Parts: sequence; C-alpha cells; structure tokens
Amino acid sequence: MKSLSWTVEIRARVNARLQAFFAEKRRIVSRLAPPSCELIDEIADLTLRGGKRLRPITLFVGFRSASPEGDPEDTLEASIALELLQTYLLIHDDWMDQDERRRNGPTIHAKLEKIRGNKHLGGCLSVVAGDLACGYAWEAINQAPFRQERKREALQEFATMHQDIVLGQHLDLISHQEIERMYDLKSGSYTVRGPLKLGAILGDATREQLEILNDLSRPIGIAFQLRDDLLSAFGKGEKLGKPVGNDLRAGKHTLLVSEAMKLMSAGQKRAFERVLGNKEATDDDVAQALGLLVDCGAKQTIEQRIGALSQEARQRISESPLSPQGVALLLQLIDLMLARDY
Amino acid sequence: MKSLSWTVEIRARVNARLQAFFAEKRRIVSRLAPPSCELIDEIADLTLRGGKRLRPITLFVGFRSASPEGDPEDTLEASIALELLQTYLLIHDDWMDQDERRRNGPTIHAKLEKIRGNKHLGGCLSVVAGDLACGYAWEAINQAPFRQERKREALQEFATMHQDIVLGQHLDLISHQEIERMYDLKSGSYTVRGPLKLGAILGDATREQLEILNDLSRPIGIAFQLRDDLLSAFGKGEKLGKPVGNDLRAGKHTLLVSEAMKLMSAGQKRAFERVLGNKEATDDDVAQALGLLVDCGAKQTIEQRIGALSQEARQRISESPLSPQGVALLLQLIDLMLARDY
Repeated sequence: MKSLSWTVEIRARVNARLQAFFAEKRRIVSRLAPPSCELIDEIADLTLRGGKRLRPITLFVGFRSASPEGDPEDTLEASIALELLQTYLLIHDDWMDQDERRRNGPTIHAKLEKIRGNKHLGGCLSVVAGDLACGYAWEAINQAPFRQERKREALQEFATMHQDIVLGQHLDLISHQEIERMYDLKSGSYTVRGPLKLGAILGDATREQLEILNDLSRPIGIAFQLRDDLLSAFGKGEKLGKPVGNDLRAGKHTLLVSEAMKLMSAGQKRAFERVLGNKEATDDDVAQALGLLVDCGAKQTIEQRIGALSQEARQRISESPLSPQGVALLLQLIDLMLARDY
Repeated sequence: MKSLSWTVEIRARVNARLQAFFAEKRRIVSRLAPPSCELIDEIADLTLRGGKRLRPITLFVGFRSASPEGDPEDTLEASIALELLQTYLLIHDDWMDQDERRRNGPTIHAKLEKIRGNKHLGGCLSVVAGDLACGYAWEAINQAPFRQERKREALQEFATMHQDIVLGQHLDLISHQEIERMYDLKSGSYTVRGPLKLGAILGDATREQLEILNDLSRPIGIAFQLRDDLLSAFGKGEKLGKPVGNDLRAGKHTLLVSEAMKLMSAGQKRAFERVLGNKEATDDDVAQALGLLVDCGAKQTIEQRIGALSQEARQRISESPLSPQGVALLLQLIDLMLARDY
C-alpha cells in the first residue's frame, strides 16, 4: 500500500492511542480479574502486530469531507473504536473459518487451543476474547467527541455497522448466492460506509453530505473486497500476513470463484474442483488452480469489475458538492484501497 | 417467583416492546439479507419464550430509587437493551457449555447444528446470532432517553457491564478459584449492578445514590447466583427451563461444589466424584449426589451465605438516604431475587 504522508501520521497516532488504551485496560483487569489479562494480551497483540489502519484513514477522509479545518485529534477515539471492532470480528471470523494465521502470527483460537490442549476450550476462549474486544469498541465509540445533539445518530451508525457486518458474516457462512450483497454488508459496512459516515458526523456533516458518502460506499466497499479476494489468491504471503491459497483450500465462496465457474470449460472445471475446498491441496495444486483462474478469464473479469466500480465512485465524487479537500482525499482513498499491489 | 403487581406490569410492557422491536428488525432484514431472518427468528424465539424480566424489574427499582415520580415509560428502551444483552450472553454461554436446553426449548446452537447437520457450522451460526443480539442491545441502549449530559456516563456503565460479564465468563471457563469474584463479575454485573445504576441514571440520580446502589450490588448479585446454583441443583426442571443436574453432570465449578469438597468425608467424596463431571450419570446417580450435598452440610452452608449476604444488603439499604419508595422496592427486590422457590 502506498504511504502518503497523511496516512503515515494517522497510523502513528492510532497505534499510540491503542497502546495507551490497552495499558489502561490491563491495569484495571490485573486488579479485577488477574487471569483475564491473558485475553487483553491476545487482543492487544493481534491489534498491534499489524493492520493497515485503513478504517481510521477512511474515517479521517469522512471527517475532512465535512470539516476541512477540524482538529484531527477529534477522530482518534472513533478510530480506535473501529480498530477494536475489527479485532473483534477477526477473532470470531478466524475461529469460524478455522484459519491458523493472521497478521503474520497465529490466530487467537489456534494459539489458545494449543496452550490449553483442548480444541473446544480454545474456541470458547477466542469467542470470549472477541466479545471483550467488542465491549472495548463500544466503550471507545462512546468516548468519541461527537456533538451532544448528534451522539444518538452517530452511535446508531455504529450499531447499524455492527449489525450489518454480522448479517454479512451470516450470508458468508451459509454461502449465499448474492455475493456482492454479502460483500457490501460484511466488508463495505465497516471498511467504507461506517468509517466515512462516522468521520463525517464528527465533522458535523450536513444530511446531503452524509447521503453522498453513503452512496459512494457501496461501489468502493465491494471493489475493496474484490481486490482483497485477488490479493488473497495472487498476493504474497508475507505481505498478506496469512498463507496464499487459503481461500481456495477452504472452498471460500468468492466472486472470483463464482465467475470462474461460469467461464471455465468442463475440463478446466474438473481440474479446478480438485483444489477448491481441498485442505490437503499442495502448493503446486494451488498454483495450477490459480493459473486456471487466469486462463479462464475470471481474474480479468474481476479486475474489470473493480475498474467499473471505481469509475462509478469517481464519477459520483466529481459530481458531488463535497469540499475540494474532501474530494481530493476521497480520490486518494480509492487509489489506496483499490490499487493495492500483489 | 412471586408476582407482585408492579412486576407483572413491567413484564407485560417489556414483552410488548420486545415483540415490536423484533418485528421491525425482521422487516428491515427481510429486505437487506432475507436468509438472515433465520437469526432474528431464533433470537426472538429465545427472548420471548421465557425469561422472568428480572433485569428490567431491577432497572425499574434503580429508577424509582432516584426518581419517585418519573414516568416508567422512560425505562422501556433500557429494559429491552438488558434483555437483548442477556439473550446474547445466553446464546454464547450455551454454546460454550454445550447445553442443549434453555427456557424449555432447544438452545440455538443445538437446534442449528441439527438443522444444518454440521456441528461446527451450528456453533458458528449461534455465535453469529449472539453477535447480532449484542448489536441490537447496543442499539436499544443508545435509544434510551438519558439526559444528554448523562448519556456518556450511562453508556459507559453499559460498556463496563458488557466487559465485566465477559471477564466473569472467562474466569468461569478457566475454573478460577475465586468463585465469588467470578459471580460478582459474571452475574452480579448485569443482573444487579448494571440494571440498578442504569435505572438510577435514567432517574437522574445523585453521585451518592449511585454509590449506594453500586455497593449494594455485590452482596445481592453474589447471593442471587448462589440461589441460582441451588435452584439448578435442587429445583424443578420445568420451572427451570433446563434439566436439573446439568451443572453436576457438566462438572460446573460452583461455590456449592467447592464447599462440598471441603465438607465431605473421603467416602462421600468418592461417591460424589463419580457423578461430578460425568455426562453419562443417570438420574439416580444425580439424586444420590444431591443427597450428599445435603448430608455433608454444603447446601446449608450456601443457604447461610445467602442469608448473610441478604442481611448485609438489607442493612446497607436501611442506613441509606434513598427515597422511602426506593427503599421499599429494594427490599421487595431482594425477596424476589433471593427467596425464589425450588
């Protein structure tokens, strides 16, 4: 991901604030329930050992779209709320997907299963760790400096985001066929829509500005998830923080796979399905399946879809009455989110 | 549980409001993510098919302690927030404990495992259902009519309660030795402390009133959980909504069991340990183990502890400068919570 100077600054401030938050929580819990420091340490480690802070960056863009002059400090508590919410979701998702690696380290359930020597207990402890991170996220958003008369609206936005993600996760679990709808709910909601709108409310946005940001969020959010799918398939493991090919081995229900199923010849399909959902597939098998995704044109189709969604978003931005500073940052944000390299 | 007329009224109002809440959510989700109505139906069914609404009743007592004249309507949104939070916790706890019955019906994970024919997927869907109920709880508490200048304080109380329960659940999972501390965190927090304080803040309580309610909550909360342990062991299954003896079969780490271990003779212990944690124990085995809990004096010890905690709470109430109406209701609440019959 490109490192624009303003994004570097946001990352540094958010990381420092997260560190202070966890230190304070550790202080409280070491008096209240000493053994539970185990949970905080896991949450803190996962949160701080990686993460691009994309959601705080997006929140800042929403803030600037409404308030070109506002103090960036005002975005800090809401930013850590988004990161804590993401930690909660990652912990629960990783357990659900039974993924073992995240941000170049073991997932929490994988680690705790090993330490406790008990698979179910490890799963329980990871669900509890996620629940605690969720409680922390809500505490942080409640501390954000929204204007008193807009606080209910802002927290409703956070609640809607929380609920939408869960609905999206549900659709994902049951392999629902409307994949773009699932992407909008599961990924778009808390990567783009929620952060943009929460930032805008912090900047005391007008109804009209909020509506524009809301409408922009769908194409950007879906395109972001499509880029993520491509990175998960064709990216580099170290940069990704988890093994490449996992989505294929897990038989994950991505638009990339769904397109491939429409485009592949019967022979290609047979070869591909030997890898899809096959946890024992070797790296060579995965490489061959990835080749098929390119050959059949599915990768290109997804690239084109990302291009079209990105174009749709850019068009809406250029026609909007947002501040020039907001427009410029939104265009940079789209680059940041959609032009991530492999 | 006794049915005082004011508690009957609260139950009716809370049930009606919950019904309306779920109907509205179903309407939204049937457009947004139709298959996810499955989750709402499960959450609504579990929430509405039972539950004593003890937490709304407790919240009302906190409200009256601070505001003898306030409109009871003002407590409604916070009341359903507490019920939704409880649903969230029950769903996650039941999955963690692998319990099959709750409120005279199947637990959500047990039902979904069966429907999907997949144990892990059933577990995932129940965790997701809990997460959704959690998002609903936070939405409801945000809608409660706290005074603008006390909203941050109120929501911090809700966040603290959310986090304390999770810490208590963690101590429970790892069988921590300080059982009363675990009870205070896991059960006292959201059965007594949180509801009393949230109600009091809705009634615009003074610092001093909040402090008294806070201090009262520890003895009442612990005694409530001890009574619950006795009911789980010696109660009637239908009234309980789940099979009697499950705590014993699950080897649950209650104060009752912990006291028994100190009081039993070596012979009694051997007989008792054949049942404790033995999922295959017959009803006769369980009945014999329950007899041992009586014979060794552990049941009586717990009854005495409940008496002492109840006495401590009554003493604090009688010395407090709460409104006479608040004092009267608090004393009724203690009866309601601690004198539940088998």
